[in-house]
Amino acid sequence: MSSVIPVRLPENPYEIAIAYGSLNQLGNYLKQLNLGKKVLLVSNQEIFDHYGKIVITSLQEAGFDAYTHAIPEGEVHKTLDSIARLYDTALENRLERSSTMVALGGGVVGDMTGFAAATWLRGINFVQVPTSLLAMVDASIGGKTGVNHPNGKNLIGAFYQPRLVLIDPQVLKTLPVREFRAGMAEVIKYGVIWDEDLFAKLEQEERLDDFAGLSEELLQIILTRSCQAKADVVQEDEKEAGLRAILNYGHTIGHGIESLTGYSAINHGEAVAMGMVAAGRIATKLEMWTQEEEKRQNNLIQKAGLPIYIPANLDSEAAIALLQTDKKVKAGKVRFILPTEIGKVTITDRVSSDIVREAIDEIKAA
Amino acid sequence: MSSVIPVRLPENPYEIAIAYGSLNQLGNYLKQLNLGKKVLLVSNQEIFDHYGKIVITSLQEAGFDAYTHAIPEGEVHKTLDSIARLYDTALENRLERSSTMVALGGGVVGDMTGFAAATWLRGINFVQVPTSLLAMVDASIGGKTGVNHPNGKNLIGAFYQPRLVLIDPQVLKTLPVREFRAGMAEVIKYGVIWDEDLFAKLEQEERLDDFAGLSEELLQIILTRSCQAKADVVQEDEKEAGLRAILNYGHTIGHGIESLTGYSAINHGEAVAMGMVAAGRIATKLEMWTQEEEKRQNNLIQKAGLPIYIPANLDSEAAIALLQTDKKVKAGKVRFILPTEIGKVTITDRVSSDIVREAIDEIKAA
Repeated sequence: MSSVIPVRLPENPYEIAIAYGSLNQLGNYLKQLNLGKKVLLVSNQEIFDHYGKIVITSLQEAGFDAYTHAIPEGEVHKTLDSIARLYDTALENRLERSSTMVALGGGVVGDMTGFAAATWLRGINFVQVPTSLLAMVDASIGGKTGVNHPNGKNLIGAFYQPRLVLIDPQVLKTLPVREFRAGMAEVIKYGVIWDEDLFAKLEQEERLDDFAGLSEELLQIILTRSCQAKADVVQEDEKEAGLRAILNYGHTIGHGIESLTGYSAINHGEAVAMGMVAAGRIATKLEMWTQEEEKRQNNLIQKAGLPIYIPANLDSEAAIALLQTDKKVKAGKVRFILPTEIGKVTITDRVSSDIVREAIDEIKAA
Repeated sequence: MSSVIPVRLPENPYEIAIAYGSLNQLGNYLKQLNLGKKVLLVSNQEIFDHYGKIVITSLQEAGFDAYTHAIPEGEVHKTLDSIARLYDTALENRLERSSTMVALGGGVVGDMTGFAAATWLRGINFVQVPTSLLAMVDASIGGKTGVNHPNGKNLIGAFYQPRLVLIDPQVLKTLPVREFRAGMAEVIKYGVIWDEDLFAKLEQEERLDDFAGLSEELLQIILTRSCQAKADVVQEDEKEAGLRAILNYGHTIGHGIESLTGYSAINHGEAVAMGMVAAGRIATKLEMWTQEEEKRQNNLIQKAGLPIYIPANLDSEAAIALLQTDKKVKAGKVRFILPTEIGKVTITDRVSSDIVREAIDEIKAA
């Protein structure tokens, strides 16, 4: 089973290839892109242990010189210092402008490798090989790259498009179940903001909380429709001048929750799930959608094994203060993405802090 | 006296405005660009002392909120760490995507501010107000931004176009004479690579080595023709896929000289002058141009008060080894830009290390 989704950007068009068992074909995929001989494969140690050998062999058999760089695992290492180490490896191996950095891993690996590729020699080739569901359906597509500032997530970065996104759904079998669920948060997001058919399809399924519980066919549908939704939005608004902001549904408050909990206790997908629950509640309070729709959304989130409450001890005032540092703040006003029905959202900067505070307090775990 | 040079880039067109006494008009210029309210003015302490007040007043009178950030002076501080401090200021002042960073200063200030603007919130507005001749005719135009890696100049960076380049020639009166001469190296470069009329005009002048020795009219011609040459080349090849490499005439060996002398004993313009002398000598040895033309070039360099010899103690082998780390290396081959006549250059990767070594040794100071 396989599908190819073109991302039609005027300056930097590329394809998302979704194909079972394609990991050992990476070298051949790259060969078709007419890249230079040197490829720096970037990942973390755990993923290298699982897939390093197969990928390096594939690159070498296709005639590339393959080098490797391991970045320490986890969001806490998503820093400018880690990028500086990546630059060192690039220099040691004399990467050239025609060379390529391949990100093999989840969102953190992809974001960091992309930022290094965007800024080494003012930009070299970049390829995404996402290994987490979250990275497959979201982070690997659309060219957002970057690292965290000590006081805020993803504040440092660049828009930099990959030359290719290669997705092998089989690698999800080694993904921890909690990570799989985190990815489902973004899948559900596409259902709420863009694709009501995907939402309806997910509602029909009995289980969404484990790779082992999903058929190969369902997974292919989930990946294809999610990637297509992301590609649709990015094509219309590459640099986030308008429409693209809707992809941040659940992220505005979600980022605050991640930040306040130190990027470790709660993972990104869980934070997005909580953020969607919060946004859904705000929308209900403002009568933008119905309580019934809010419930349908939250049921799906729950079916994916994701939280529908936020930690009782979360400091609501601190969360509200953090909203002000969000990248999407415009003229001091926080912009919220709020659902108007399943499959549609709107962007508004007219949500009072009081409403946000009430919503957060209402969805806190008892 | 004033002129406006459009830089016609498909995605990011902008103008270079060259106008006497325009510094106190910066606020009005920015107002026409429809930017957000927040402007972060970046410079170093010395330039702030000279021009900070006039620029801040201009910004405030035009209705902007002006913030400032001083970066330590000099190439040695052109590091990722200095960028991290700039990010801190951006966060403290809650810059938004619609906000603007203005670089008021020479090439180092411009390169660093541009890189910070390119990578803060994945890109905010950027304006160049160059205060050195070098920055006016070269660094401020064309979107090259970045910092040094400990082992190589400008290896970290991004292509990021400014929204405006505002040049007030009057500020050159406070530029140290050695810096003025450094800028003349790039002016002479345009004569050699692109504009033989400019070259001929410079040949007619008696003095080129001091701001005080140049008429207002001559300076306007020098600035306008140099900026036009740079704009011509950048328009044809924004991302340095081909033609743009000719702007590196004199820079290939020049960068090596700067690097080996620690970016301090010899300034950038002096290194470029030496690099042009070296490239000219290589071209003569390869019979690509005549000894007479080499002499005309070197006479002009000398008239601008610039060196036509390289330090006797420079390690030729180390310089040759450093060429391999140049960003323009392709498939391991060093590409040289060599003159074929006054006003024209060619790009070649067929220069042997022996020829480079001989040329370097021949132009060493006795």
